[in-house]
Amino acid sequence: MADVKENNSKPNAKSGGKKKEVKKETGLGLSNKKDENFGEWYTEAVVNGEMIEYYDISGCYILRPWTMTIWEIMHDFFDAEIKKMKIKNCYFPVFVSPEVLQKEKDHIEGFAPEVAWVTKSGNTDLEVPIAIRPTSETVMYPYYHKWIRGHRDLPLKLNQWCNVVRWEFSNPTPFIRSREFLWQEGHTAFATKDEADEEVLQILELYRRIYEEFLAIPVVKGKKSEREKFAGGLYTTSVEAFIPNTGRGVQGATSHCLGQNFAKMFDIKFENEKGVSGMVWQNSWAYSTRTIGVMVMVHGDNKGLVLPPQVASIQVIVVPVPYKDADTQAIFDACSETVRMLTEAGLRAEEDLRDNYSPGWKYSHWEMKGVPLRIEIGPKDMANKQVRLVRRDNSSKIDIPTSDLVEQVKGVLDKIQQNLFDVATQKRDASIRVANTWEEFTLALNEKKLILAPWCDEMEVEEGVKQRTKGEMGAAKSLCTPFDQPELPSGTLCFASGKLAKKWTYWGRSY
Amino acid sequence: MADVKENNSKPNAKSGGKKKEVKKETGLGLSNKKDENFGEWYTEAVVNGEMIEYYDISGCYILRPWTMTIWEIMHDFFDAEIKKMKIKNCYFPVFVSPEVLQKEKDHIEGFAPEVAWVTKSGNTDLEVPIAIRPTSETVMYPYYHKWIRGHRDLPLKLNQWCNVVRWEFSNPTPFIRSREFLWQEGHTAFATKDEADEEVLQILELYRRIYEEFLAIPVVKGKKSEREKFAGGLYTTSVEAFIPNTGRGVQGATSHCLGQNFAKMFDIKFENEKGVSGMVWQNSWAYSTRTIGVMVMVHGDNKGLVLPPQVASIQVIVVPVPYKDADTQAIFDACSETVRMLTEAGLRAEEDLRDNYSPGWKYSHWEMKGVPLRIEIGPKDMANKQVRLVRRDNSSKIDIPTSDLVEQVKGVLDKIQQNLFDVATQKRDASIRVANTWEEFTLALNEKKLILAPWCDEMEVEEGVKQRTKGEMGAAKSLCTPFDQPELPSGTLCFASGKLAKKWTYWGRSY
Repeated sequence: MADVKENNSKPNAKSGGKKKEVKKETGLGLSNKKDENFGEWYTEAVVNGEMIEYYDISGCYILRPWTMTIWEIMHDFFDAEIKKMKIKNCYFPVFVSPEVLQKEKDHIEGFAPEVAWVTKSGNTDLEVPIAIRPTSETVMYPYYHKWIRGHRDLPLKLNQWCNVVRWEFSNPTPFIRSREFLWQEGHTAFATKDEADEEVLQILELYRRIYEEFLAIPVVKGKKSEREKFAGGLYTTSVEAFIPNTGRGVQGATSHCLGQNFAKMFDIKFENEKGVSGMVWQNSWAYSTRTIGVMVMVHGDNKGLVLPPQVASIQVIVVPVPYKDADTQAIFDACSETVRMLTEAGLRAEEDLRDNYSPGWKYSHWEMKGVPLRIEIGPKDMANKQVRLVRRDNSSKIDIPTSDLVEQVKGVLDKIQQNLFDVATQKRDASIRVANTWEEFTLALNEKKLILAPWCDEMEVEEGVKQRTKGEMGAAKSLCTPFDQPELPSGTLCFASGKLAKKWTYWGRSY
Repeated sequence: MADVKENNSKPNAKSGGKKKEVKKETGLGLSNKKDENFGEWYTEAVVNGEMIEYYDISGCYILRPWTMTIWEIMHDFFDAEIKKMKIKNCYFPVFVSPEVLQKEKDHIEGFAPEVAWVTKSGNTDLEVPIAIRPTSETVMYPYYHKWIRGHRDLPLKLNQWCNVVRWEFSNPTPFIRSREFLWQEGHTAFATKDEADEEVLQILELYRRIYEEFLAIPVVKGKKSEREKFAGGLYTTSVEAFIPNTGRGVQGATSHCLGQNFAKMFDIKFENEKGVSGMVWQNSWAYSTRTIGVMVMVHGDNKGLVLPPQVASIQVIVVPVPYKDADTQAIFDACSETVRMLTEAGLRAEEDLRDNYSPGWKYSHWEMKGVPLRIEIGPKDMANKQVRLVRRDNSSKIDIPTSDLVEQVKGVLDKIQQNLFDVATQKRDASIRVANTWEEFTLALNEKKLILAPWCDEMEVEEGVKQRTKGEMGAAKSLCTPFDQPELPSGTLCFASGKLAKKWTYWGRSY
């Protein structure tokens, strides 16, 4: 298991057949191409990159350390931000009783088919089956009813980091669609709709930052259609990403305003300053380990993973390039000294001094794992008091003086982070097509585009679009109505119904 | 929900009936006494202290923010320490397939009756029932078999933070015995037994530090008997705490050496430097949210919770003590300034400026929640440029000059942390009885003591002790054989069997 092994690797005279053996295991390079067979490429990238191990229960995956570091870095950012907002962490049980789960009808309809049920403990049947949480609205809100009495109990702002289970049967995909996944779910209650509306957007902005500032993925902020909104909620906002290779949108994270619907179902009332009783306004919002899958799909290439420096557990891998007649120990020492300097400067750097692998093998290995920057040190570099930097994102090579190491490396890592975002944005933007008519729409859909179309915003019309685009590729649906709306000339007609259009909306196939 | 409310409380003219109403809800002070009816006292302390809310599924509890902060502080310490040891975090699925779960026979026997089974998703029966992890040895080790090939793959050191489920039917108790709980579980594999033995003790030392340095609870490090060791393991070490009020020991955390038993079951082999194949040596170790329950039981008093400063989410609560004719705003400002100074100094301090509660009510409220230190500021303090400190642990009051605020408060918090540990140690030590004969043993047991007795270390003898002490209070068992062994005069006989004693062992009833 490389990501453990590296840490414990010591220079060692032995070599021999070992190399080949491991080579076979790790499967250097990928046998699938991102442009040719994306699905197989994705699986190979996350498995050979040692992010994911397949598990003996379908739809469940093992998240390996290479994945968990990314999850922890995003956690530390998001958790600190919501604590500034006075949101507090809690933990509610993973189990839900049937009557509570089914209290909100629209809501449960959205989840019922995917709910896993515990019916036995040991050999004993339970008196009533117990559900495993697919999400925690109905788990938490009976207690919001109990905890909220007066205006001084508001706002009530809680979050939890936990696992949830949705027993889906449609093609499971690591990170993107799994039967168990990790997420945070925030659940807040306010005295006024204004406060709720404001928080929905504050949280959505944090989700944008996770995608754009950490994962280097451009997202569109917008509102979901009535058909696509959270079951039981008032309205849903989301950040939407796009995968050019498959022409599919992917819902990155959602921030819902639940309105007063759950408050009515669970009787969450409060007495205001004037002693008048009112219903609370509620939000719920979540992002999950799906974020990591989107990162792989957007940045990965035919060599494997490409990790943005912000979230990479190893930002810089230092590889010695010894030559027969060169002073190997001196080169090893230079590598260790380089790692020491970078680590001291707060960078995540490691050395790969294993002597049972060739430099070339190590290059491929760390490229497959997506390490953003490689430093090579050989006799010539020693002589010239320099090191060679090789970027993972564009393979460019730069020799820099050892004297200026830290500053230069920091600068290059920033450039890599920015370049990944820029390239992803160019590819995303190049995939956008404006469609004013049904013909333009279907044409763009077949070309796997992200379609921006004028829409009348009627649910039946979206239902119709879904029916008319059914097929093995999956039907098209609305992705979101972007907050940033292009001008809509008066008289513009809906691409699908021919009625007057109300807004520009993104459409496409999605994950 | 006070711990949310406080953060958002603003000075406000309104008051009236609200006070009484909340008073009723929060139930100021406790109606049960720790010495009289401990069980009811404990429940009242964790519920009124707003750590726990009872849930509609028996044996499941809601962990409220007042609890989660403590959990997070311990997490941040432990997670950083194991990362220094090159242990990496991962996440394995919550679900286990039956054949894998049952692979290790002794192991599964230990857990089988408590395993919860998922048999349906939606309305569909699963082809095979799927278990929810009670612990993850059998979940993880098939992949250790896959990941470990050669000596360079070792050591393999993984940890995960997760929830586990043990569907127990014997009297559930918040934190101490619940059907779902949070924990970390470490799973490591080594080439040699020496490395495994060494890590077992390194981890046990971290557990000791969590109890003694963070929770201010004295623990005994020792080894479990063959009868009490982890099912399927080679030997189990633990830190053992004691609850004087109930005379029960409580297993604080365990660090197991699994030997090569699981390695044989799951075929976890490696090739050493000489190309010779060998079995790995494995450890597993865990601590859980039970730690928090032990903290409440040891330190809590008739006023409610008593939190050690190291883990308290609020270390200092600042309460204004206005008088009719005094300048209330000036007092409020002094409180805010005090909080600002303490917060700047890195302390967790908050003010309670709510004007719909009397100072006296606030004193009781924050005492019930266990805040270690209270600062009172009234007109007299303003005049004398001083504040009054009131300690939660011993109710002592000290007036200190505002000029020396931060240093004095830090000093007092350190004293409180130390005093809690010293008092708990005195009470624990006062409960220890040496028993050389069966008569002395049963006498001490009835007096609810922690019994240190010379033992022949034979399993049938422990079984006999269990049989002979059966009763409504529960049977006695061995708690641990302390590493720190008193001298055992040659010829000393076992308290229970009359055979030659091999060691001193702690005995008693336990949770």
